[in-house]
Amino acid sequence: MGYCLAVGEFDLIRRLAPYLDVAGGQLLVGHGDDAAVLQVGDRGLCVAVDVLVEGVHFRRDLSGWGDVGWKAVAVNVSDIAAMGAAPTAVVVGLSLPPDVGDVEVEAVYAGMREACDRWGALLVGGDTVAAPVLSLAVTVLGDVAPTAAVPRSGARPGDRVVVAGALGAAAAALVQVEAGAVPDDRLLAAHRRPRALPAAGRALAAHGARAMIDVSDGLGADLGHLCEASGVAVRLRADALPVADGVAGAAGDRLWAVVCGGGEDFALAAAVPAGAADAAAAAAADADGVPAAVVGEVVRRGAGAAVVLTLPNGGTMDLDGLGYDHRHGTGDHR
Amino acid sequence: MGYCLAVGEFDLIRRLAPYLDVAGGQLLVGHGDDAAVLQVGDRGLCVAVDVLVEGVHFRRDLSGWGDVGWKAVAVNVSDIAAMGAAPTAVVVGLSLPPDVGDVEVEAVYAGMREACDRWGALLVGGDTVAAPVLSLAVTVLGDVAPTAAVPRSGARPGDRVVVAGALGAAAAALVQVEAGAVPDDRLLAAHRRPRALPAAGRALAAHGARAMIDVSDGLGADLGHLCEASGVAVRLRADALPVADGVAGAAGDRLWAVVCGGGEDFALAAAVPAGAADAAAAAAADADGVPAAVVGEVVRRGAGAAVVLTLPNGGTMDLDGLGYDHRHGTGDHR
Repeated sequence: MGYCLAVGEFDLIRRLAPYLDVAGGQLLVGHGDDAAVLQVGDRGLCVAVDVLVEGVHFRRDLSGWGDVGWKAVAVNVSDIAAMGAAPTAVVVGLSLPPDVGDVEVEAVYAGMREACDRWGALLVGGDTVAAPVLSLAVTVLGDVAPTAAVPRSGARPGDRVVVAGALGAAAAALVQVEAGAVPDDRLLAAHRRPRALPAAGRALAAHGARAMIDVSDGLGADLGHLCEASGVAVRLRADALPVADGVAGAAGDRLWAVVCGGGEDFALAAAVPAGAADAAAAAAADADGVPAAVVGEVVRRGAGAAVVLTLPNGGTMDLDGLGYDHRHGTGDHR
Repeated sequence: MGYCLAVGEFDLIRRLAPYLDVAGGQLLVGHGDDAAVLQVGDRGLCVAVDVLVEGVHFRRDLSGWGDVGWKAVAVNVSDIAAMGAAPTAVVVGLSLPPDVGDVEVEAVYAGMREACDRWGALLVGGDTVAAPVLSLAVTVLGDVAPTAAVPRSGARPGDRVVVAGALGAAAAALVQVEAGAVPDDRLLAAHRRPRALPAAGRALAAHGARAMIDVSDGLGADLGHLCEASGVAVRLRADALPVADGVAGAAGDRLWAVVCGGGEDFALAAAVPAGAADAAAAAAADADGVPAAVVGEVVRRGAGAAVVLTLPNGGTMDLDGLGYDHRHGTGDHR
């Protein structure tokens, strides 16, 4: 989930931007990135918020109560990871419909607790209110050296694109569900309990990443945001992408659309100087025990698509706009 | 709105407490207070979250879009104020139903911007998602010296109770609405655009306040939380309470129930050493331009009610449990 407004909401983003603060003074990174970063004393304080709504971001028939709590934390930790920061604390605003009882709320909290323990964050409290629909608004704080936060805006032509984390699993599970098939357990696990990669994010930052974003809406859409913020374009090679096991079989002839447009990967995509890219990918893979690879390069922005994928057969696929619109729920692949 | 779980949810609070971190190490104040406080570098970082849901916390026929944005910020700034802290930054998770268009969203953001400007906080970003019901989950950060945060738990017998801010206006407006009357503009303004009192909170802290809470659920319920956290009781004098103008006429014979149980005052109630109480009240009044008064005293906890009000006629009224239950919406006066 992006910290920026929802994909496709360009008109709304333009309308709202005047009401938001831009970077300057104690605000080191303002709106439009994965997280805002504030100077607090001698530290950089990251803050990210994401809202998960039943029926939009999860379904009770696919996710258990603990999964929902876990996921609400994980998607936010992923935003903190994309800044090269370490998650420190979590608060939650929980909206509860009448049919969700105390036992279920406890299970949601148990899932949040597990996720906080997994990534070393404190779970420090929240608000619980009555509402017609179940939703979780989670805010995660993170810590980074003030000069070390990695924005979306620093990519330069010649940089390499590094992706850490496997792509396509959660989206492939939903493809199976929509087709009426029983989803592959490995794929469904990625939808239910996504992994955030803050250690990989810090490894990429330590290896000189100049721009970074988490892959929540789909690699194409999220690299599109990075390109927009940096004023660049990227060229990707399909055969270099770290595709999750089982995705090829589940996605069939929609493979690259699912891998690059499905979303919910919570992988990281970074622009790293060419000379450091291989080492950055290796360090990221090692830090979080996930696949990572150099998948393409940053080029000058031209008139065409910003994000272009070269397929194994030599053809190309424009990835601009391929992804999930959180507000209207009109993503191509969900 | 309390940062703790909803009033009346004692069973749920007991269930969830094991999943939350308690104070210790870098967590200076844990769950169950108006805000959590974390040590960040050499500063105390306060964090509070409150969720406002349409139909539960506001109605479109009583509040404009800008009012809704303002209120979502104000109720959280009030939690920061109750720690004796200064608000610094705001993020929002906005859930939008299909009938809320871009123009309305812009008005909500304009209201949040006005409130942030009023209290000197940055508005640094947010998340916007589709949902069946309109809600705003706002997280406010605040700054305080690490040793200066005022918890709910420090009140001691012999302390005086100081209230800063006028009581009863928002509740009285809703009494009028429920009775089918046209609400008094002054009263309705308190419902639409509540004032938070961070300057008064800092003044009370500077004058030695040992415990503090914001009055969101009603003076009785919120002082009940302070008594529970501090292991004390309080005795209040009705004729000392700073009742808002117009409340007496609107509330009629329910006056003290409305003043002490109606909620949405966003006043501050503090326990201050007896010798400093008058000066603390005067400083709080001066800091935010609101009425403030010494309204009672802290006594030892006995077997009876924790919060007892002596009425002008010499009778007494137990205020324990008099207030609004956010989850079930079964408050006495809304």
